[in-house]
Amino acid sequence: MKTSIATVSLSGMLPSKLTAIAAAGFDGFELFENDLLYFDGAPGTVRSMACDLGLEIYLYQPFRDFEGVSAAQLQQNLERARRKFDVMHALGVGTMLVCSNVSPQVIRDDALAIDQLGALAELARQSDVRIAYEALAWGAYVNSYKHAWHLVQAVGSPYLGLGLDSFHTLSIGDDLDMLAQIPGDKLAFMQVADAPVRKMDVLEWSRHYRCLPGQGELDVTGFVATALAAGYCGPLSLEIFNDGFRAAPAELTARDGLRSLRFLESQARDALASAANTEAAGTLAPLPPAPASADLQFLEFAVDANASATLTTWLEKLGFLRMGRHRSKDVTLFQHGRASIILNAEPDSFASAFFMHHGVSLCASAFRIDSPQEAAMRATKLGYALYEGRVGPNERNVPAVLAPDSSLFYLVDELPDAPTLYESDFHLTDFDGPTEAGPIVGVDHVTLSVPGDTLDSWVLFFRAAFGFVAEHSVVLHDPFGQIQSKAIRSRDGTVRIVLNASVDPRTIHSETISAYKGSGLSHVAFRTTDIAFAIRRLEDDGVPMLRIAQSYYNDIAARFNLDDAFVNVLRKHNILYDRDVNGEEFLHAYTEQVDHRFFFELVERRGAYDGYGAPNAAVRLAAQATHRG
Amino acid sequence: MKTSIATVSLSGMLPSKLTAIAAAGFDGFELFENDLLYFDGAPGTVRSMACDLGLEIYLYQPFRDFEGVSAAQLQQNLERARRKFDVMHALGVGTMLVCSNVSPQVIRDDALAIDQLGALAELARQSDVRIAYEALAWGAYVNSYKHAWHLVQAVGSPYLGLGLDSFHTLSIGDDLDMLAQIPGDKLAFMQVADAPVRKMDVLEWSRHYRCLPGQGELDVTGFVATALAAGYCGPLSLEIFNDGFRAAPAELTARDGLRSLRFLESQARDALASAANTEAAGTLAPLPPAPASADLQFLEFAVDANASATLTTWLEKLGFLRMGRHRSKDVTLFQHGRASIILNAEPDSFASAFFMHHGVSLCASAFRIDSPQEAAMRATKLGYALYEGRVGPNERNVPAVLAPDSSLFYLVDELPDAPTLYESDFHLTDFDGPTEAGPIVGVDHVTLSVPGDTLDSWVLFFRAAFGFVAEHSVVLHDPFGQIQSKAIRSRDGTVRIVLNASVDPRTIHSETISAYKGSGLSHVAFRTTDIAFAIRRLEDDGVPMLRIAQSYYNDIAARFNLDDAFVNVLRKHNILYDRDVNGEEFLHAYTEQVDHRFFFELVERRGAYDGYGAPNAAVRLAAQATHRG
Repeated sequence: MKTSIATVSLSGMLPSKLTAIAAAGFDGFELFENDLLYFDGAPGTVRSMACDLGLEIYLYQPFRDFEGVSAAQLQQNLERARRKFDVMHALGVGTMLVCSNVSPQVIRDDALAIDQLGALAELARQSDVRIAYEALAWGAYVNSYKHAWHLVQAVGSPYLGLGLDSFHTLSIGDDLDMLAQIPGDKLAFMQVADAPVRKMDVLEWSRHYRCLPGQGELDVTGFVATALAAGYCGPLSLEIFNDGFRAAPAELTARDGLRSLRFLESQARDALASAANTEAAGTLAPLPPAPASADLQFLEFAVDANASATLTTWLEKLGFLRMGRHRSKDVTLFQHGRASIILNAEPDSFASAFFMHHGVSLCASAFRIDSPQEAAMRATKLGYALYEGRVGPNERNVPAVLAPDSSLFYLVDELPDAPTLYESDFHLTDFDGPTEAGPIVGVDHVTLSVPGDTLDSWVLFFRAAFGFVAEHSVVLHDPFGQIQSKAIRSRDGTVRIVLNASVDPRTIHSETISAYKGSGLSHVAFRTTDIAFAIRRLEDDGVPMLRIAQSYYNDIAARFNLDDAFVNVLRKHNILYDRDVNGEEFLHAYTEQVDHRFFFELVERRGAYDGYGAPNAAVRLAAQATHRG
Repeated sequence: MKTSIATVSLSGMLPSKLTAIAAAGFDGFELFENDLLYFDGAPGTVRSMACDLGLEIYLYQPFRDFEGVSAAQLQQNLERARRKFDVMHALGVGTMLVCSNVSPQVIRDDALAIDQLGALAELARQSDVRIAYEALAWGAYVNSYKHAWHLVQAVGSPYLGLGLDSFHTLSIGDDLDMLAQIPGDKLAFMQVADAPVRKMDVLEWSRHYRCLPGQGELDVTGFVATALAAGYCGPLSLEIFNDGFRAAPAELTARDGLRSLRFLESQARDALASAANTEAAGTLAPLPPAPASADLQFLEFAVDANASATLTTWLEKLGFLRMGRHRSKDVTLFQHGRASIILNAEPDSFASAFFMHHGVSLCASAFRIDSPQEAAMRATKLGYALYEGRVGPNERNVPAVLAPDSSLFYLVDELPDAPTLYESDFHLTDFDGPTEAGPIVGVDHVTLSVPGDTLDSWVLFFRAAFGFVAEHSVVLHDPFGQIQSKAIRSRDGTVRIVLNASVDPRTIHSETISAYKGSGLSHVAFRTTDIAFAIRRLEDDGVPMLRIAQSYYNDIAARFNLDDAFVNVLRKHNILYDRDVNGEEFLHAYTEQVDHRFFFELVERRGAYDGYGAPNAAVRLAAQATHRG
């Protein structure tokens, strides 16, 4: 499909917006009228700029409060439309978006609206332009695509079609049954936008919280698939009103925007194919398939000499064994249970550059999947860059995708009867694994602290590049601000990543407590089968656990009606407790901080508990603030 | 009245919260249970800390979902309450807040709720504590103070009173008639919070957007006055859930918090006094009265040699005359019409320190009022610092109040038959004023760019210290983000100040365009009686006006149905146009930027137009972004 974006979705002035749109690879754009108004040049100049950049102008928008008015007002509105049609001719754009009237004075009369839209269609015919009539979710009288379609159908002019917008339909929970029945040639334009589900006034929601398809929680795929099945054959166009995007660099938004459309198109294709609509599916571009399942192969830390010593001590206390050294690099492999951790001390590598900026931090993760080349191709098609590292003789060339913070996600497969990645690349100490099983089973999840203004980019990255699924965001209370937390997992549920972002920039830049980083803390959570047993073992080995305030235990005893002996075990080992609505339990505990931005967690999932102990996050954050001193 | 604040209103850990509360001068606090939970120490330790700081613990809160439950649940809830009462005894706090049940499973039966609250009151009697039962605005069954009072009254126990919260009542638009009738001894506690009016879910509104009394738009004064008239005699306690406060330093929030309570108390006193309730008014502490009227006496810029030359050139082109030099300082007075501008080049003064940080900027403003000493005393009582400058022989000692950014607001009076401030402090060039009247009448308004996280502090400053009134905020669209704009004016409407704050910190730190400052731009708007005439004069004198995009004029011609000749005048002089719902008109134009953060505006108000041309702000911001290059 042709790809398009409304200029209102981007920050900056019109020329730089168009440059960003073209650089991202869109086919064209919707011109938001204010962008023309603020541009100090003639419409013809905009036409030339677009032409020079290879961009088509698909739509001129918005034209407001046209229908359901008095006869005198109609004449003024038609005159206003005529002037816009002149501008459109100068711009070289064929379609104008007309939004349903939002004035409280609107005359609530379908026959009148049909007459007036008919007059507009006739004017459009004379000017050889086309109208896309769109129902705003907060339209004063017409506020659903069904009502708008009723009017458009009644007018019956080829110069008046329906304008679709996924947000306006999905935000009010409207069904898509009628959409499937509308003739494709009557669907004049389709705008797409996603949004997180919020309980708020729909106008405010639309104006400030829209996001790119794949970043939110609306079924944009179902909406688009339905319109395509009905025969829509215009461009797929982003119209995103988002407070963050208004301040973000246009280049980044445009690049993510095109990714979101490619992802959306492939998802719509899959949806149509599953519905056996091969004809409609055939018009859409596929992406190489996302991995059906994924496993966390290893986590890689960038270290200098100090960090290497610190982390090695921590890992040894946590029962990790030094299992190998890389054949050609200063890279060490540690393993415990199914958890593999790599310390990369290689100078002049991507890792060392990463370390310079971030302190002790994850510089790479590896997903074990079935078809790494296919997945890498998918990421490339979505505009994500691949990293090509130096590869020694006989070492494996493992593709890696660059994440929004330039950390790497390696894509690894292991074939039967072939050497494993570790065998290829490492001198292994003891290939048969640790002689004694430790208390850690493997990695449960990884929590990444990301800047607030990149959270949406991260969500799109995991969803689009790897086909991961995202959960509803939760807000965590840090003593110095709020943290938005979004959990992501692989489709099979095996890889779990939690993204934490400070809502207020002051939270991570607080000067109140030196080196305080708020959500700047990342951590790795290890799974255990018996957390109390594990902590006893680890404490014996010198792992310092984060002390939890004693009042917490009085509170959970009362809140969950727990027996004293059990609470005493939790209290003794500083274990936090959560129980879900089905009675499934989660026990977890934290180590003290490894450095100013990193720590470990131990978890025990009982039964089908599926979360991360979010109700306890504030307790943990407060304990960290207390013991940071 | 005793002053109190809920610990949940402040950032940080409990010990630092209490230190901030004591330092600000509160009498006591409400202990939010989570703060105790996160504190790694016994309740007795909190009691000692509070005692050492001279703070009383007025309330333990919140206790949730007590009433309207099954018999079995009631027993659990009573047991839970009993445990809390034990904690309260250890803390030394006598009152517990019980919030109305928010569970969808609540049993909607008054008789049952009365029985169960009666059982709680009986338990409270046995433990010698008191319950304040509060209706949450989103309570599942009980959601108004009227309903809560019906239950409390029916129980009829001295151990069960009504908990009031201004937000819960005002947010749902409830009237106060019944409140006035409740016996004072049944009003167990009163929490106060203000909020901007927002169209959103009341729970979300309450949790994220509350602000200090005086910073929002609810009639908190009327609420408090009614409760006091009814005989409430407990503390006035702030409970502010605010995303910004969660990340702000606790000391600043606490200091503004106490100011807001002093201001609220004095306003409630005035309200009761006007209602001839001298008895209730007599229990409240007054503030020295705010000035009934104010005029802008002068604006003072901090300048170094370069800035002095730049501004002098600009002022001379704008028709200002150099009217005097300060008797003892390197300070120059310029005047044009009723506008006075002072350039302060004094080294080692507050102004020079100010200039170092801000570039060309307003370092002081002077309000001409009737009783400067009284107004200064008022500001002092509210905890605002006064500035005492160096005063030469025979010069006037003018009190000045420090604003949130440490700029000064001088308070000046002029008495008949006494030398004016200018006569006292300046060698005047020409005391009789300019020989020829220029096109500028005086200052219309001043727009201050303030950091987003200080906007609420600024609003409170103007409202509390000077008794100014605030208008509803509007959002302005900058090409690189959004700006929240709040207009403030003196009670008589003469002094007008507009506060602009970038919503997203990236807007003022954008690296896209070098030296781009978003809302970082401040400006002074001069009033004219004929803006086209004024601009012709000023352009002749070399004042460069900001060029407006030509499309703007086509748009307003169509939008307002303006005649061509008029539009041509606007277009020729780059004048922007607005018209209000009553047909009153506003014409305004901007100069090019004086430096990277300052410019001038010229305005002509026709008839009773009362705004600032907000619909044109985006046009101005876009033009500035364009011509900044």
